[in-house]
Amino acid sequence: MPLDLASDVVSLTQQLVDMESVSGAEGPIADAVATALQALPHLTVERFGHTIVARTSYGLPERVVLAGHLDTVPLNDNLPSRLEDGVLHGLGTCDMKGGDAVILRLAATLDRPVRDITFVLYEAEEVEAARNGLNKLSRSHPELLAADFAILMEPSNAGVEAGCQGTLRVEVRTRGERAHSARSWMGSNAIHAAGDVLRRLDGYEARRPVIDGLTYHEGLNAVLISGGVAGNVVPDECVVTVNHRFAPDRSEAEALAFVREFFDGYDVTVTDSAPGALPGLDRPAAKEFVEAVGGEVAPKFGWTDVARFTALGVPAVNFGPGDPTFAHKQDEHVAVSEIEHCERVLRAWLARD
Amino acid sequence: MPLDLASDVVSLTQQLVDMESVSGAEGPIADAVATALQALPHLTVERFGHTIVARTSYGLPERVVLAGHLDTVPLNDNLPSRLEDGVLHGLGTCDMKGGDAVILRLAATLDRPVRDITFVLYEAEEVEAARNGLNKLSRSHPELLAADFAILMEPSNAGVEAGCQGTLRVEVRTRGERAHSARSWMGSNAIHAAGDVLRRLDGYEARRPVIDGLTYHEGLNAVLISGGVAGNVVPDECVVTVNHRFAPDRSEAEALAFVREFFDGYDVTVTDSAPGALPGLDRPAAKEFVEAVGGEVAPKFGWTDVARFTALGVPAVNFGPGDPTFAHKQDEHVAVSEIEHCERVLRAWLARD
Repeated sequence: MPLDLASDVVSLTQQLVDMESVSGAEGPIADAVATALQALPHLTVERFGHTIVARTSYGLPERVVLAGHLDTVPLNDNLPSRLEDGVLHGLGTCDMKGGDAVILRLAATLDRPVRDITFVLYEAEEVEAARNGLNKLSRSHPELLAADFAILMEPSNAGVEAGCQGTLRVEVRTRGERAHSARSWMGSNAIHAAGDVLRRLDGYEARRPVIDGLTYHEGLNAVLISGGVAGNVVPDECVVTVNHRFAPDRSEAEALAFVREFFDGYDVTVTDSAPGALPGLDRPAAKEFVEAVGGEVAPKFGWTDVARFTALGVPAVNFGPGDPTFAHKQDEHVAVSEIEHCERVLRAWLARD
Repeated sequence: MPLDLASDVVSLTQQLVDMESVSGAEGPIADAVATALQALPHLTVERFGHTIVARTSYGLPERVVLAGHLDTVPLNDNLPSRLEDGVLHGLGTCDMKGGDAVILRLAATLDRPVRDITFVLYEAEEVEAARNGLNKLSRSHPELLAADFAILMEPSNAGVEAGCQGTLRVEVRTRGERAHSARSWMGSNAIHAAGDVLRRLDGYEARRPVIDGLTYHEGLNAVLISGGVAGNVVPDECVVTVNHRFAPDRSEAEALAFVREFFDGYDVTVTDSAPGALPGLDRPAAKEFVEAVGGEVAPKFGWTDVARFTALGVPAVNFGPGDPTFAHKQDEHVAVSEIEHCERVLRAWLARD
């Protein structure tokens, strides 16, 4: 089914939502997006897998990237979409087809912008990093992402969220010695030994550094615990999986050093790590955008793909319609007014008077 | 393949071991045992499922039960049996076909004993209680287990182990509130809350009561722990499965009251419970047997089917060849000398001079 980029942004959101595109199955939506963009003479369109990059080339002094992912988490009996009392319900309405619709509307209608624009609609954000379309593009064609500023249209309540915290996942392991539980004194209980690991976590005090005027809030949490052999065996191993969220003034190495020190004396194995992104609000392009939006800027606690832009040296913020706490929920939804607000703000910032 | 009850006890053990009889597949071994026993005119033989009961009926003033289970835990590349340097290796050698062979040899050769004897060879000891042949028999035909004394020939290093500890399994549950781990202060971590449960366990001091001269040793151990929703979610539930082994001077209700008090303030759910068995060494039949064996008596820490006899009012002990620490192990084995010793001791106690 073709996309109608001439329709209003809400109707366009609904068209996108009703094209099912769970990660790994973005083929049809990417086809529709590519076809619609290729019909626009002012854009150069390239495709990499199910990731589409469309650019203006007016030779303007500044270039911005507007980016959104096309995939969603799995269906949860929440399609097709339903528009009711100014709220659009359904899988992907919040995360993040409202943002995608804004991007596509601007691509179709801003044929004489004040800044050159790179529109990126990419695949596989909801799954492992190796499949992430923006990640792949940043490695294979970093020049296509070169810009003075990037706006990732992930849901942020239609406000600006700057930077993002890094995330580190480690396994903290305790060991003991197996024995029959009827003769438990012959062994050593690894689950009991994990009590000290949990006690330390319980006593953790979060760092709350202020960066570019934004107050971040770190976290250190056991997210999984497992141990035990059988109902009559003193267990010889217990594994606590800990997720550390760290403010962007710390590197991955510094965050890991903190965690190793925190669990001093225990076996700590890293299973996952991604750097944070500094807010970069001191850069001119970022300052101007924040002024144009006119709202408060909030720190981004969760990790998002803005960190990939930061890694390329491009300041980036999150700015998109939808309340992120409803992302990945069965009752995902977005206020129509937020989609319209985002379109209006970006149009005002990018269009000639 | 028929069993040859005229062969020596070691060869008979080997015949039994080489008849694979994992729990649920005891048909062939039970057939062979029933056929062999039915050929003996001094015994009355009855069969219930794969449980065989054979009795003498001389009207003697005392009756003893000799009991053993016919099943084994699953194969672990440890059949057929192998006799080497006085040690018989293979699945079931220790747990407990050496004991079964002693029972069958005595059944075949003691045709004029000093006590009436009930020989019980039963199914499904290695699986859940509902399938256990001795348990089923104690409910359907308790009169067949009536006796002055019972000897369960589970491996006990050819020594007498009296009584057994009870076992209680509970789930101790902590609760919290889910949140995204990037905004962990919005939730409450149930795994962290389990730290106090583990801390209490770590501080547990075992009771070691002396009963009939035997020192028991209780235990309270986390045997399993699980909690966690996903790698980026503050978990709202953590479950610690705790196994309490309690000395036989406490009832199941008393043991549970202790555990509830120990975990005061937490949600405690019972998942499994079985009473202990008092050693009963003050009973005349038990005293005489212990004198006949002439050895030390040890307390039985693990739960065994002796508790089923105790529940029927029959004093019972464990007495059988094999080191129980090799039961359920790939390298299960039994010293031939222990099988022979057990046969000799029981024959001396039961035969006319």
